[in-house]
Amino acid sequence: MKVLILGGGGMIGQKLAHDISVNGLGGETPELILHDIAKPRWSGAGNPTLLTGDIAADETAQTLAALKPDVIFFLAAIVSSDAEANFKTGWDVNTRGAWNLLDALREQHEASANAYRPKIIFTSSLAVFSGPYPDAIGDDFHNAPQSSYGAQKSVVELLISDYSRKGYVDGLSIRLPTICVRPGKPNLAASSFYSSIIREPLNGQEAILPVPDSLRHWFASPQSAVGFLKHAAELDFNRLEGRRAMNLPGVSCTVADQIEALRQITGNDAVKLIKSVPNADIANIVMGWPRNFNPERAIKLGFRADKDFASIIQSYIDTEMPDSH
Amino acid sequence: MKVLILGGGGMIGQKLAHDISVNGLGGETPELILHDIAKPRWSGAGNPTLLTGDIAADETAQTLAALKPDVIFFLAAIVSSDAEANFKTGWDVNTRGAWNLLDALREQHEASANAYRPKIIFTSSLAVFSGPYPDAIGDDFHNAPQSSYGAQKSVVELLISDYSRKGYVDGLSIRLPTICVRPGKPNLAASSFYSSIIREPLNGQEAILPVPDSLRHWFASPQSAVGFLKHAAELDFNRLEGRRAMNLPGVSCTVADQIEALRQITGNDAVKLIKSVPNADIANIVMGWPRNFNPERAIKLGFRADKDFASIIQSYIDTEMPDSH
Repeated sequence: MKVLILGGGGMIGQKLAHDISVNGLGGETPELILHDIAKPRWSGAGNPTLLTGDIAADETAQTLAALKPDVIFFLAAIVSSDAEANFKTGWDVNTRGAWNLLDALREQHEASANAYRPKIIFTSSLAVFSGPYPDAIGDDFHNAPQSSYGAQKSVVELLISDYSRKGYVDGLSIRLPTICVRPGKPNLAASSFYSSIIREPLNGQEAILPVPDSLRHWFASPQSAVGFLKHAAELDFNRLEGRRAMNLPGVSCTVADQIEALRQITGNDAVKLIKSVPNADIANIVMGWPRNFNPERAIKLGFRADKDFASIIQSYIDTEMPDSH
Repeated sequence: MKVLILGGGGMIGQKLAHDISVNGLGGETPELILHDIAKPRWSGAGNPTLLTGDIAADETAQTLAALKPDVIFFLAAIVSSDAEANFKTGWDVNTRGAWNLLDALREQHEASANAYRPKIIFTSSLAVFSGPYPDAIGDDFHNAPQSSYGAQKSVVELLISDYSRKGYVDGLSIRLPTICVRPGKPNLAASSFYSSIIREPLNGQEAILPVPDSLRHWFASPQSAVGFLKHAAELDFNRLEGRRAMNLPGVSCTVADQIEALRQITGNDAVKLIKSVPNADIANIVMGWPRNFNPERAIKLGFRADKDFASIIQSYIDTEMPDSH
């Protein structure tokens, strides 16, 4: 089995690759290929092939499809704020690149004697949705993105669904919850504070909370994200009944719930490092995001989220702070 | 005001052009341009420009955008069965052509001193939906197409929405009900019988009914379609609140309701010309289609459908059978 990870240099791509290199995928130890715009790092087990290329370039699609991977994890994207600031680049990278790859895979399918048809697991996003929302977003709620990033993800979902329906590929788009706690440093994403308010206090540093603590949102740990991706790749797609885009389970909680979970784990001193500094720009973006889901289909298909936000924090401590034990 | 109709040679395009040439648009008598793959016919009032070109060709987008139309009615498409049989052509014509045009219009916007930004009215389709359905499909029901045609329309909706959100164009996608009674001859579309079972008996000819008469579906007359398009072009888009794809009002009725309406208008002799010849292929396609909608937003925004199916039949008689009076 040959497994290609697009966006293999990113945080989730790296964690997924390390998990597969240690634990395998579907009971096998696959040949791993990591691809990204810059050469992916590697310090783990095994000896994955590390490729570099621009996913938006026509020749990249041809090169990648010619590898004939059995499973493609499609994580490559430019982030929301970048896609919003750079309209054409966003559409080229986040949609046109995926469409090029699907067409190149279709041509491989048509040229192959044994009906080559790779599994594709595409990471879509909550950004395909916009309000007004019901109390919990159901599996039939409409995608009506209000960002270029969300529109780009939504279009790729539709492409993967139709290319799959016709048998050229065998795809599934999974709409990841907001990943928290992200390791590393704060970044420019509007969602960055959701990780900062946990990560920085755990490391004895101050964190800024730019929104009211009543705000509710939908989370999964990086470890759950890896689990979702592997479960998707191992799933019998006949069970999808032709519906190839899916909301995933997660943890719905308010910022106050997040902070209370931190207090339970670390005590008051850490919580005191969180400073409230209201930022209307960030609040306006984040208040438009989904607050809660009722992801019945994904749960029925065996996708499992973190138990609660305390588990999400513990997952960060266990994975990223080994010296704290 | 300059008005461009893409698909200006088609049935709805022609009716729209004739209506605008007689009644104007938004209180003005615009300069009309009809564009289609074959040269559009013209025998009406005024002197519209008649253009020919392949909407999927790169140079077409440049040519059309350089005309700087104030309003673009985007009706051009290859039909559902064609898009299903010819995968690449379908995506090229129904999606890539629209994307090329949006990009060419964005470039015109960016190059213009006065922030050129055309209104675009795009005819989308019920084919963006698939079952299982609620009793009446609401405005928040998810698009999950199960045909290439539906996926292609759904993608263009998303593109128009995002290009509009960024201010490059000012678009609205309207999801037309099945148009009935279509004038002319039966065609290969699975929906063809919905018009045939009314049109042929009215003209003293036999018609084949390939499905059970309990089947329910969603209809509008060609005259309502023209009304929807004109209303959309005249609508203040600030009222859309950023939601640029919309279900339209229509008439929900069963085949039995259709036949009963025909009986009320013409008597039993016409109805006896409808022969039931079950066709499982057609039934399987048509049974997957939406049956009923609750299009609250469109009604609030002033879109108006036919009163009932009898009105739809009468509309055909008045428009297409002038000698019957």
